[in-house]
Amino acid sequence: MNTVEQVEKQTNSIKVLQGSITTPLGFLAGGLHCGIKRMRYDLGWIFSVVPASVAAVYTTNLFQAPPIKVTQDSIFTDRKIQGVIVNSGVANACTGEEGLANAYTMRKMFSEQLGIEEHLVAVSSTGVIGNQLPMEKIIDGISSINDIQQQNDASDFEKAILTTDTFSKNACVTLEVNGKRITIGGAAKGSGMIHPNMATMLAFITTDAKVQQTALQQALKKVVDETFNMITVDGDSSTNDMVLLLANGQAENEELTPEHPDWDLFLQGVNEVSKSLAKQIAQDGEGATKLIEVQVKGAASNEDAKKIAKSIIGSNLVKAAIFGGDPNWGRIVAAIGYSGVELKSTKIKVDLGPITVVDNGLPYLFSEQEAASYLQQNDTIHIFVDIYDADGKATAWGCDLTYDYVKINASYRT
Amino acid sequence: MNTVEQVEKQTNSIKVLQGSITTPLGFLAGGLHCGIKRMRYDLGWIFSVVPASVAAVYTTNLFQAPPIKVTQDSIFTDRKIQGVIVNSGVANACTGEEGLANAYTMRKMFSEQLGIEEHLVAVSSTGVIGNQLPMEKIIDGISSINDIQQQNDASDFEKAILTTDTFSKNACVTLEVNGKRITIGGAAKGSGMIHPNMATMLAFITTDAKVQQTALQQALKKVVDETFNMITVDGDSSTNDMVLLLANGQAENEELTPEHPDWDLFLQGVNEVSKSLAKQIAQDGEGATKLIEVQVKGAASNEDAKKIAKSIIGSNLVKAAIFGGDPNWGRIVAAIGYSGVELKSTKIKVDLGPITVVDNGLPYLFSEQEAASYLQQNDTIHIFVDIYDADGKATAWGCDLTYDYVKINASYRT
Repeated sequence: MNTVEQVEKQTNSIKVLQGSITTPLGFLAGGLHCGIKRMRYDLGWIFSVVPASVAAVYTTNLFQAPPIKVTQDSIFTDRKIQGVIVNSGVANACTGEEGLANAYTMRKMFSEQLGIEEHLVAVSSTGVIGNQLPMEKIIDGISSINDIQQQNDASDFEKAILTTDTFSKNACVTLEVNGKRITIGGAAKGSGMIHPNMATMLAFITTDAKVQQTALQQALKKVVDETFNMITVDGDSSTNDMVLLLANGQAENEELTPEHPDWDLFLQGVNEVSKSLAKQIAQDGEGATKLIEVQVKGAASNEDAKKIAKSIIGSNLVKAAIFGGDPNWGRIVAAIGYSGVELKSTKIKVDLGPITVVDNGLPYLFSEQEAASYLQQNDTIHIFVDIYDADGKATAWGCDLTYDYVKINASYRT
Repeated sequence: MNTVEQVEKQTNSIKVLQGSITTPLGFLAGGLHCGIKRMRYDLGWIFSVVPASVAAVYTTNLFQAPPIKVTQDSIFTDRKIQGVIVNSGVANACTGEEGLANAYTMRKMFSEQLGIEEHLVAVSSTGVIGNQLPMEKIIDGISSINDIQQQNDASDFEKAILTTDTFSKNACVTLEVNGKRITIGGAAKGSGMIHPNMATMLAFITTDAKVQQTALQQALKKVVDETFNMITVDGDSSTNDMVLLLANGQAENEELTPEHPDWDLFLQGVNEVSKSLAKQIAQDGEGATKLIEVQVKGAASNEDAKKIAKSIIGSNLVKAAIFGGDPNWGRIVAAIGYSGVELKSTKIKVDLGPITVVDNGLPYLFSEQEAASYLQQNDTIHIFVDIYDADGKATAWGCDLTYDYVKINASYRT
């Protein structure tokens, strides 16, 4: 039985909750304003009552920022993390030796504040590239985390990691493993520099499940490929991006491994949380007014379907047309044509929501008015493509290209 | 001796002229309004007094439009073209059998009008995808080309091929081959859907040089890779794009082949015309206010340098920052980092015009004000990147991302 079928049967066992990274047992989180940004929260943390098994996916950008290196160093020690410290406003990227020293200082300070070993702390930064961190402010900020129970507020953490995002992002699901309830929660930030080729933003996922570490890493890699790596805002990918998944075992379930009968269900749970966060990131793309979801099926392989879906979702022309409420399906067809995928035939089908616009590779008679009103009246635009070849399928998410995208990015720093 | 050195020595033999596709001997061209577009010229033609050797590069988009197929068919017969008929307004793409029949009808009508064989006619279309050509208007238009001498006006041709372009594009150079003066002229249209992976717009290059056909094809392929394939407006590539190079031999020079001592000079002449047209296309990108030129040197190979240059020029974030006059070098560094090129070291240098902004991979102290004023006060923005590894180099051209890009593309059809 393939995973998708299995999961469809089991989906009723996964419940979506109003929740966050602190909904799973044994996780605390918080955030505060330490002064990197003018007014808004800019320093956040996560704490697990015990060291948690950790999985991580990092940016593929060659210019990996110092905090990425420090986090890798921490995880390398024994694949456990108990605390995460994150700042926004300054990315600590392209900052050389001084930047690396600063990231290590952040790790040290936070570990001392928590009374845990340094290598149990992960560090993350997001914001402008090239500036050194204002370390005094960060040190003062970390010092003011005095009572991690008292200051426990996941929504403060969610705020503290944002940059040009317009809303906080969270997701939570629960499911049963051998009769034990386990919960998975997540927080993320996105907005600019969101690209499908990598883990392209910050996302933190927590679970109270007990999971074998190598299995956890496999799970995260697979899920990231299907969710965070399938969103694009502008095709740019950042120096700092990272997805962390912490599993602290507080649910006291039988340890999950790929051999466990509930493994696929757990995987689906992580997928649900990641997909929800990924869609929120796409929806909150800089200047975006609409979420675009592209579903491709019938491709020669899933890989081909991914390429086609990403090509469409990455097209500035498609994105601008959707912003303008223009059912310009020719741009969708063109994007399929330059995706780099060889098609056996060009007799494809394209639907905009409920409206077929291309069939058999040719324009299909549709009401322009109806199509325009579909585009104008919905917050989420669905594009369906059928290649009519084999079973390959994929879904990608993105957003429209608007005046505000240009406005935000013409003057991000100034 | 490598080509570049040789060419530098010979560059003083190439003269840039105010000229067009009709400056080379034996070429006529014209254009008119046949009614596909509301007001503007929409039908253009080129005629050579004798069948000319032809080279062609076509779009790599899978959904090649019918006119491309008809042109390929014509050229296949005996690699000669005497007439070119072009319409703008409707691309005749994704139009199936009817579209193909229409493109053949255009070819037939124009060949009859000129009194030449059908296979000597190339056909080209540009405009909206998916609509059938208004054949009555096109047939009437072709019928009204009565006196090709009387109607000879290259600027009318240049206008007739435009879509959202804001100005006509032409270039011309002259040089001597064995004491015989030969001339190379060109016309192009660009604007939207301009992408580096292919011949991505319409360009027509004429020369009165006598050139062996296989050599002509090699020359065009090489030149297109260094010029038209190095520009990007929005990363989208079209279904219709084509570069044609016609050489009619009217200069009566010794036939040029790669073994001829003046071959490299000729190649450089074609390169100059193509580069000029390519830069005009980039400069006239939809909504553009600035031409951006990215020069990369010191890469491990020219291929790597190309990838890096294209990654920078294709970054929406870089493009928007330049529109905003923001010297946000972090985005340039990030674009280098995700270009897919493995660097030996990240100790790179980046200059914005005369201002060094990154050195040794780290921020270099510069006056933000000076950098901002460089960006604001120049119509052409130069970005120089030195990888400090080997000798690989490349240049790419693009434009800034502006409110008007969004405006134009949110409502192209409506």
